[in-house]
Amino acid sequence: MLYQRYFEAAVSRLKDERRYRVFVHLERDVESFPLARWHRDDGSVQDVTVWCSNDYLGMGQHPEAISAMVETASRVGAGAGGTRNISGTSHAIVELERELADLHGKEAALVFTSGWISNLAAISTIADLLPNCLILSDASNHNSMIEGVKRSRAERKVFRHNDLAHLEELLIEAGDRPKLIVFESLYSMNGKIAPVKEIADLAERYGAMTYVDEVHAVGMYGPRGAGICERDGVMDRIDVIEGTLAKGFGATGGYVAGDALVIDAIRSYAGAFIFSTALPPPVAAAACASVRLLKRRSDLRAAHQRATHITKHALAAGGLPVLENGSHIVPVMVRDAELCKAASDLLLTRHHIYIQPINYPSVAKGSERLRVTPTPRHTQEHIAHLVEAMVGVWHTLGIPFVEPPSHLHVDEKSKEHCAYPEIKLAAQ
Amino acid sequence: MLYQRYFEAAVSRLKDERRYRVFVHLERDVESFPLARWHRDDGSVQDVTVWCSNDYLGMGQHPEAISAMVETASRVGAGAGGTRNISGTSHAIVELERELADLHGKEAALVFTSGWISNLAAISTIADLLPNCLILSDASNHNSMIEGVKRSRAERKVFRHNDLAHLEELLIEAGDRPKLIVFESLYSMNGKIAPVKEIADLAERYGAMTYVDEVHAVGMYGPRGAGICERDGVMDRIDVIEGTLAKGFGATGGYVAGDALVIDAIRSYAGAFIFSTALPPPVAAAACASVRLLKRRSDLRAAHQRATHITKHALAAGGLPVLENGSHIVPVMVRDAELCKAASDLLLTRHHIYIQPINYPSVAKGSERLRVTPTPRHTQEHIAHLVEAMVGVWHTLGIPFVEPPSHLHVDEKSKEHCAYPEIKLAAQ
Repeated sequence: MLYQRYFEAAVSRLKDERRYRVFVHLERDVESFPLARWHRDDGSVQDVTVWCSNDYLGMGQHPEAISAMVETASRVGAGAGGTRNISGTSHAIVELERELADLHGKEAALVFTSGWISNLAAISTIADLLPNCLILSDASNHNSMIEGVKRSRAERKVFRHNDLAHLEELLIEAGDRPKLIVFESLYSMNGKIAPVKEIADLAERYGAMTYVDEVHAVGMYGPRGAGICERDGVMDRIDVIEGTLAKGFGATGGYVAGDALVIDAIRSYAGAFIFSTALPPPVAAAACASVRLLKRRSDLRAAHQRATHITKHALAAGGLPVLENGSHIVPVMVRDAELCKAASDLLLTRHHIYIQPINYPSVAKGSERLRVTPTPRHTQEHIAHLVEAMVGVWHTLGIPFVEPPSHLHVDEKSKEHCAYPEIKLAAQ
Repeated sequence: MLYQRYFEAAVSRLKDERRYRVFVHLERDVESFPLARWHRDDGSVQDVTVWCSNDYLGMGQHPEAISAMVETASRVGAGAGGTRNISGTSHAIVELERELADLHGKEAALVFTSGWISNLAAISTIADLLPNCLILSDASNHNSMIEGVKRSRAERKVFRHNDLAHLEELLIEAGDRPKLIVFESLYSMNGKIAPVKEIADLAERYGAMTYVDEVHAVGMYGPRGAGICERDGVMDRIDVIEGTLAKGFGATGGYVAGDALVIDAIRSYAGAFIFSTALPPPVAAAACASVRLLKRRSDLRAAHQRATHITKHALAAGGLPVLENGSHIVPVMVRDAELCKAASDLLLTRHHIYIQPINYPSVAKGSERLRVTPTPRHTQEHIAHLVEAMVGVWHTLGIPFVEPPSHLHVDEKSKEHCAYPEIKLAAQ
């Protein structure tokens, strides 16, 4: 092939920097989640415990989501048949959009083929429709938001991660022009939660529109699972809420919710929406079933938080360097790309635990980590096994341990609601 | 809401230009395809015949595709659970990629969440990995290809639609630098087929890499349904073939196929791939079943071509201005945005036929059209009803008729293979 050397050089570069990624070939199983079958290269198959899934609540394996998908596929078929305009506006997608608008207390919602595309399409379209718009973007925003910001013709400024003073400074500096603040409610790689209320305050004070990415929060926070904005009582003060159907809701696709007018403008102007085949009705139906179910299932959210709490406590009690953050994401710090990859490999091959390494560019160099995501279906045995395995791997590879920080101790109140008995650590 | 006036102005602009789109709310039905239920705004429901679906072969409603989706959802769940790196490399997607690589006779394939994203991600990544690359892009390329071209940092030049002389001129002008020719094998809006062999000749002569979008051809052309490149015997002379799982294959998602090295580079560098949740296993399984089935079902391709041939002939015999193109897409020219929308509305409300209007920016102003897409499941009755309805609408609205051009007459050879008896036109 022509130009072979350029592609070779590009791939070699990643290998040299120890950030060439090898995908682990897995087969999920509704019966055994969070276990999955790992297909090795030699053709053999091994059960492994998945500890890094974004199917945070196990909704992808929930009977109601699956039966909605099965019933819809059997009745209307596997695909949408076209873009929304070309016969792709299915009954299932219309119902899903109603359900999502209701979830977020907004007039309208619009479904995309992925969360990545929601951000690309919605951010760039909104910014381009506001004359002389300035985008103010959090420094830790997800790749898809950065792509949306870059795709627009608008000027952009980046404010330091969750830094209200810096954001305010930029808002003042910007003066009267239209301003769009784009940020996440919960940052996936460090698990930190944004000061959503304070950002809404600033937006109101200085006249800016707000766009929040809630993909790591929808389904999991707030009384009906609408996310951090719902939990913090500020849903009505945020202009556009973007979410995903692929994580807490266990299916696939993304969406935005907001005033009917803004949603109509995005629907009418965003090429990525206009020119993409619609989400298949069976996928929309599965997502819709999840959203409906999670509106009333606070118990699943509580079980998720409990599993997280216990996991953090147990890992910290094992001396592992857990990054505290107040969310359901449990980053365990390695701070070295090669060790991080080696730890992931050892966990898989020796302990049959799957946690992929998080290296640059997902996180800054020197802040490499394993990102653990407990689900309500991780049992006390799973957690004990995880801690034992990680402690063993840390010893084997000589990764630094830390003393458990005191704020990670289980307090009396949360103990009361704890579904899991005290974790016994065989390795201790 | 802040900035309301800007969004109002944006939506009004579309309404003033008669290109504000209203989606038709449909419910498909595996039993009655190409019929679907139209949900009117008043809540009533009406059966309509869909004549504009991109589910060209009806594979979205095929029992093998549906049962693959149902079986996989029941066994492994509704969603992928994460990106390809975060436990999203499912067995179903690994199998699908093998099947697609085999289909196109390439070393590897990579699946994306949509065809739109495949083009955005693959074109921009390839161009950015080639130092000082010049992209040569066909003037009629799809929105997703244009977005991919624009997203890259590479310089680009546009060659006139299917114009080999112009392409050659630009290749000569470019000299020694890396060059990437991006084009479609079959253009969706006019149905024209690219001179793929001649483009491959030019690429070899002047040292350019080739990237072809086969989304409107995969499943439908070539002995095993690999598309126009297969039909024309040039599959091995094209570097990267992009396809969709959402049209001929009846599911959703997109893909690229090529040398393992190029595919690995795209996999490793394309943010839109890296940071998107993988296609759900049930969707991948449905697509995989379709691809496998269509490798051996030339009879479905033949039936599709017959339905197209008969539809074109019947419409032309009715005096309707059919744009000839040699493909399965049947554009019927209206050449006026308002009339085009009115024709579509009348077909739906009076005749219960759904064909959405194709107006600017999908086509140039003054070339507005109805884009008819026959499937193997449109019967002679459907075709007769279509022609009668369109002739009626043309009369009602005073849209110009034309004499049927002679090259649309059914020749003796194609008559032999014709599945449909002679169409009787009640309106004639």
